Amino acid sequence: MRATPCPAPGFLPTFVAMTTTHTASSVHLTARPTGFPSPSGFAFVSHPVPEPAPGTALVENLLLSVDPYHRGMMDGGEGGFALHSPLEGRSVGRVTASRDPGLAEGDLVFHRSGWRTHALVTLGVDGTRKLRGHAGVPLEAYLSVLGGTGLTAYAALTRTAALREGEDLFVSAAAGGVGTATGHIARLLGARRIIGSAGSAAKVRHLTDVLGFDAAFDYHDGPVGEQLAQAAPDGIDVYVDNVGGDHLEGAIDVLREYGRIAWVGGISMYNGDRSPAAPRNLFEVVHKSLRLEGVLVRNHTNLQDELEDFLVPHLRSGRVSTETTVVQGFDRTVEAFLGVLRGENVGKMLVRLKD
Amino acid sequence: MRATPCPAPGFLPTFVAMTTTHTASSVHLTARPTGFPSPSGFAFVSHPVPEPAPGTALVENLLLSVDPYHRGMMDGGEGGFALHSPLEGRSVGRVTASRDPGLAEGDLVFHRSGWRTHALVTLGVDGTRKLRGHAGVPLEAYLSVLGGTGLTAYAALTRTAALREGEDLFVSAAAGGVGTATGHIARLLGARRIIGSAGSAAKVRHLTDVLGFDAAFDYHDGPVGEQLAQAAPDGIDVYVDNVGGDHLEGAIDVLREYGRIAWVGGISMYNGDRSPAAPRNLFEVVHKSLRLEGVLVRNHTNLQDELEDFLVPHLRSGRVSTETTVVQGFDRTVEAFLGVLRGENVGKMLVRLKD
Repeated sequence: MRATPCPAPGFLPTFVAMTTTHTASSVHLTARPTGFPSPSGFAFVSHPVPEPAPGTALVENLLLSVDPYHRGMMDGGEGGFALHSPLEGRSVGRVTASRDPGLAEGDLVFHRSGWRTHALVTLGVDGTRKLRGHAGVPLEAYLSVLGGTGLTAYAALTRTAALREGEDLFVSAAAGGVGTATGHIARLLGARRIIGSAGSAAKVRHLTDVLGFDAAFDYHDGPVGEQLAQAAPDGIDVYVDNVGGDHLEGAIDVLREYGRIAWVGGISMYNGDRSPAAPRNLFEVVHKSLRLEGVLVRNHTNLQDELEDFLVPHLRSGRVSTETTVVQGFDRTVEAFLGVLRGENVGKMLVRLKD
Repeated sequence: MRATPCPAPGFLPTFVAMTTTHTASSVHLTARPTGFPSPSGFAFVSHPVPEPAPGTALVENLLLSVDPYHRGMMDGGEGGFALHSPLEGRSVGRVTASRDPGLAEGDLVFHRSGWRTHALVTLGVDGTRKLRGHAGVPLEAYLSVLGGTGLTAYAALTRTAALREGEDLFVSAAAGGVGTATGHIARLLGARRIIGSAGSAAKVRHLTDVLGFDAAFDYHDGPVGEQLAQAAPDGIDVYVDNVGGDHLEGAIDVLREYGRIAWVGGISMYNGDRSPAAPRNLFEVVHKSLRLEGVLVRNHTNLQDELEDFLVPHLRSGRVSTETTVVQGFDRTVEAFLGVLRGENVGKMLVRLKD
């Protein structure tokens, strides 16, 4: 095993993994980040390609997912990432050797052993499943609108918030992976007015001009509460929260009676001290009979087939697009991750290892 | 009409209403309170007993309810109390004259025109209903465990929190009206461990020794979070929140995955600046897939018959008691209200006008 430390802070890792047939590589966390992660806290570690033991299959990864929630797991603690071990994340790959009777060479699989070039998996364990392989659906879809972010949006809208036809919706970080999927799915579910916030003028334009949002604003342009109140003068029924903080406070202000908040994540909090200013108007939850509920996609994996049945026809017809920002090359995995924390993506941020 | 101003701050009102057959009296708010209300902001106003117009009935009030939420309504705003008009609250009275074909002289009614000796009501309007008059059930029950506080507890447990048999529960302000009803109803629903907080050692003893709580603590005895963690070392599934603030934060810490918070009120906030420190750990709502939902009893009045069918057999058998603190005399209505804000009650605070 050979560890290649990342360059000093401020420089993105440039090490290129030697992904020959006999060398594998994985990304390790070498130091717990404080605040925004430094590339020097990661290392690309190369090692021989593993051999599948009985009951397992070797997968060559094709696409990796890097996600804001990975930042939270880097703080350690229960369910967090260990130091000096391969990081983990959602991935799509192809079976290259199998001693798992359920998997054959050539099968395309979804699994959770990302952040590495090769993985050993077992069908049905830790979410490993064969892709249903819908004709006309790109592989990227299985890590975006049909993957964890799409499933999150689908669970948030259909289960947690129980969005009804004709209701008005606000989603924060709307240009991100969960945000774009939320926009698409809410429209298909019959939402009336869809409002999004994002972090740049270009993203705001993408939301309104390409994705069909009814209104959008750049949260840098002024207090979120004021901008939201202007975009939703008649209030909203549902808020899908990817941000927390002032977005949550602003949404509580404009939610109508019986409004629902599906709280997916807090990208604004992941790099802080975990004690952000909680919404000062939280007591409105009582006055307006609001519901605030957390959404963890791992509790909704039973909805995967339902999601695919719901979306695939629209993916094929082109009514729904697969929104992704794809970084090319395993060696740019850390760069892609830091990019998603900085909001450099439109749609789901992915790393492509091979075409 | 004759207005009798209340004495200077620090003195409870002592005016005795002249409730002859020809004189009625009502309590007006004469100044909006800042912080804890002063008796000088209230006036007892006497006037002739009104005559029922066609379609209305005259009710002589027997019992009045004074509640913490009245304090919030004294700040005015939408749905708040007007100045220089009779205050309003739940009441039980007897019809003494009727031009409403649905009500007859002698009928016992529940209505919302409290804080006065006499009221004009119309059956079915603003919640006015005839009492079902269950034999063996005291009149006080209709303003406590069968009234707004009981209905709040019932809706919070059976609907908002959907308490299941064998689950563990924490309720704050447990010795109050909603709190005692929550303890009774949760036990009947099969709760396993019931934990309560209260504001004095005597109340804590009442909870454990009389009402059968499994654990209770005085929130003055130390940080609420620490005391709760000690009382619930294995966590809780449901929290019925009558307090907010540090109680809510402590409960979020000990709630298990999928835990539910039925947020009923924030007695700790009513006299403050309405911007209490929101729970710093609110993001645990995401990590643990918690649900925080407001409960307004006015949205659950359709459960009234269900509540009575559920509780009356247990009230008759003595398994459930009517927990009340009854102040005698209409002239002590303001005193009773300030007492409930100070937590001087065990169970529901009521004012009895007549035996």
